[in-house]
Amino acid sequence: MNIRLYNARILTMEKDRPVFRGEVWVKNEKIAYVAAAEELEAEWDRDFPKINWDMEIDCRENLLMPGFKNAHTHSAMTFLRSYADDMPLQKWLNDMVFPMERKLTGEDIYHLTKLAILEYLTSGITSIFEMYLTPDTIARACMDMGMRCVLTSGLNNFTSSIEQTEEEYLKWNQKQSLISYQLGFHGEYTCSKELLYRLAQLAHKHRAPVYTHLAETKKEVEECRRQYGMTPAVFLDSMGLFEFGGGGYHCVHMTDADMDVFRRRRLYVITNPASNMKLASGIAPIAEYLRKKIPVAIGTDGPASNNCLDMFREMFLVTGLSKLHEEDAASIDAMQVLHMATVQGAKAMHLSKCDVLAKGKYADIIMLDLHQPNMQPIHNIPKNIVYSAGKSNVCMTMINGKILYRNGEFNVGESAEGIYAKCNEIVKRLTEAER
Amino acid sequence: MNIRLYNARILTMEKDRPVFRGEVWVKNEKIAYVAAAEELEAEWDRDFPKINWDMEIDCRENLLMPGFKNAHTHSAMTFLRSYADDMPLQKWLNDMVFPMERKLTGEDIYHLTKLAILEYLTSGITSIFEMYLTPDTIARACMDMGMRCVLTSGLNNFTSSIEQTEEEYLKWNQKQSLISYQLGFHGEYTCSKELLYRLAQLAHKHRAPVYTHLAETKKEVEECRRQYGMTPAVFLDSMGLFEFGGGGYHCVHMTDADMDVFRRRRLYVITNPASNMKLASGIAPIAEYLRKKIPVAIGTDGPASNNCLDMFREMFLVTGLSKLHEEDAASIDAMQVLHMATVQGAKAMHLSKCDVLAKGKYADIIMLDLHQPNMQPIHNIPKNIVYSAGKSNVCMTMINGKILYRNGEFNVGESAEGIYAKCNEIVKRLTEAER
Repeated sequence: MNIRLYNARILTMEKDRPVFRGEVWVKNEKIAYVAAAEELEAEWDRDFPKINWDMEIDCRENLLMPGFKNAHTHSAMTFLRSYADDMPLQKWLNDMVFPMERKLTGEDIYHLTKLAILEYLTSGITSIFEMYLTPDTIARACMDMGMRCVLTSGLNNFTSSIEQTEEEYLKWNQKQSLISYQLGFHGEYTCSKELLYRLAQLAHKHRAPVYTHLAETKKEVEECRRQYGMTPAVFLDSMGLFEFGGGGYHCVHMTDADMDVFRRRRLYVITNPASNMKLASGIAPIAEYLRKKIPVAIGTDGPASNNCLDMFREMFLVTGLSKLHEEDAASIDAMQVLHMATVQGAKAMHLSKCDVLAKGKYADIIMLDLHQPNMQPIHNIPKNIVYSAGKSNVCMTMINGKILYRNGEFNVGESAEGIYAKCNEIVKRLTEAER
Repeated sequence: MNIRLYNARILTMEKDRPVFRGEVWVKNEKIAYVAAAEELEAEWDRDFPKINWDMEIDCRENLLMPGFKNAHTHSAMTFLRSYADDMPLQKWLNDMVFPMERKLTGEDIYHLTKLAILEYLTSGITSIFEMYLTPDTIARACMDMGMRCVLTSGLNNFTSSIEQTEEEYLKWNQKQSLISYQLGFHGEYTCSKELLYRLAQLAHKHRAPVYTHLAETKKEVEECRRQYGMTPAVFLDSMGLFEFGGGGYHCVHMTDADMDVFRRRRLYVITNPASNMKLASGIAPIAEYLRKKIPVAIGTDGPASNNCLDMFREMFLVTGLSKLHEEDAASIDAMQVLHMATVQGAKAMHLSKCDVLAKGKYADIIMLDLHQPNMQPIHNIPKNIVYSAGKSNVCMTMINGKILYRNGEFNVGESAEGIYAKCNEIVKRLTEAER
């Protein structure tokens, strides 16, 4: 498909390039051309008449920008949305999450993931870094709908194994444009030392980065200290897990020594502010990470703890919570936040061709509606996005050159109502069994 | 107009009444009937055939509930949206806000208020508690568009006067269904003791409640202590300002003595969490207020400091920030937050006929779209609203029996694009003069 997006404002997210007016041309799954209005005339003479457009979209001066990268989620946990809120983390995990999860099938996860994907599309999210129980059915849901997904293993003492993880790693890193796979484990507190040691060996064998939940709660850090005499990042690094990079999800409670590990190993902090807030885990010191040159990406975490899958909420919270935490209204400006939600997310997920809008990159593009009252007046578009925009401003989400969501309508090969019905059915079965 | 809203889920916000299925009937500006599906049959026989409906709306099992009450805002500050973010409060006020405000005309405020009203409608906000420079042009904007508004004077040493305030109070409290007026002043730190004394006399004369910005920043509290030897609430109460009730906007930094004043005088805390976050003012101790039985309502504050006008963001932050502040994930549940955003807001604003959906109340009703991925599955609708909903879920906003917003379209006697153009013109004039 050749798609011409014209009459647009464009924020490519390339370094120091402000918003300009112009066009983006998409050819199959990639961006063929990004040009400012003033450059277009020459190009028009040369190339334009030769192209047969399958679709030409008048963007009505709305904004085109790279889609958001949701760098940490457990999509299928949609089944737990609003099922058990307003309770402490440990009680929530042990009494609600784990018992219901034991009853989930791979097929359930397929459908529940689809529900999450619908919501990602409404929030301009074009790729997800996904950790959940059955990578194969998650990959299938993503491929069936057209979502870009980096899978990671949620390996722990109870689910998956080193052998299964390696098998998945090899299987899902074959040439396939929508799905890739990174090594990961659930958390230091759910894995034996033996298991971590074997995972480190696997990482060394493949020279691969490793990702995990890390330093989410004070309790987790205290218990790690008690058990190993070290804080989580220091302990995991001592096991050799981070020799080839990777990252930590959450990173709320980190010592200077932990931050040194992150800086030395070039690990990504993947922050999940809404989840940390809702579960009362704390505020991650993002401004401190930036001062120490530790790269930061943003995730929604799963819908059970958030409860919504919305990059706009997360972006506002990254800067808002930092302003509170640092007692400084100037802490973390809007462009820094947008950078985390796009370029840094892509880097954290090893999606080097999804970071910015430029020729040769994958066409993961969103359009934000500026013709809505919350985007007016137009003083400063990046600030409008971070401080004022929401799902209601997303008027197009394109992944891999395919428009999956436009003006409130999904184009994912299946009706939204069909997916809702299926998920409500699954939930009914799970909760009935529970009672 | 007789409007029948059928096939709905209904959350009336009456005490202990859960969501049920049924219908709401609207007759002119009021609610004529709210009934559960099972009660309808008898009613149908008796009354139904006699009614000539002007409009019958199939709600498709979406949710009807009372509109949100935005209990503190400065609507016309839309001109400053994204103009000066990421800077400290005092610098922001002195260098950006005040110089530009000096150039605003009443006519500018009329148009800028209209832009805010468009946004309120997209967020299900059906009444606003408004403090800004020219009450007359604000009232006109609200009446022209159909917004319900409680005006309050922003009286201080530099703008308005006791005489003008009394004149406005008498003028805007005549029988008029959309506009009313409450006494108020900008803040303890912008009013002389003499002015406060005279306002207290006015409040006593009319036996009227008084509203003001209160204890927003640490600095404000310290300076009040230094000047008067008392914290703001204690000082203002000692001046006799709260004899007939009222409330404080923000209330971030309050002592036990301040809280005693609030409890004793039955004052409302009107919290503005996004603004307090963005300006790094702090987290208001909302759970503590609830424990002390101090009533709490919610406001967005003005768009210059927020930057968006969205009750969903505020609701999530009220509970989220409380969970962080109290280190307790169970702090302030969803129904408590919804109560603040509807019933308590109405009480704080003396809008006793706008609190719940019931016969005889004003028809200030919103419909929330549950057929969207962020509202699925349907475990618990109140939790879905507070933790997951956003502007994209608002599919109808009705004020005083008139549908002003439906399915993304405004019905306010003027095009949204016309309002945007006018506001961008004003902003251009203000900022050009600035440079």
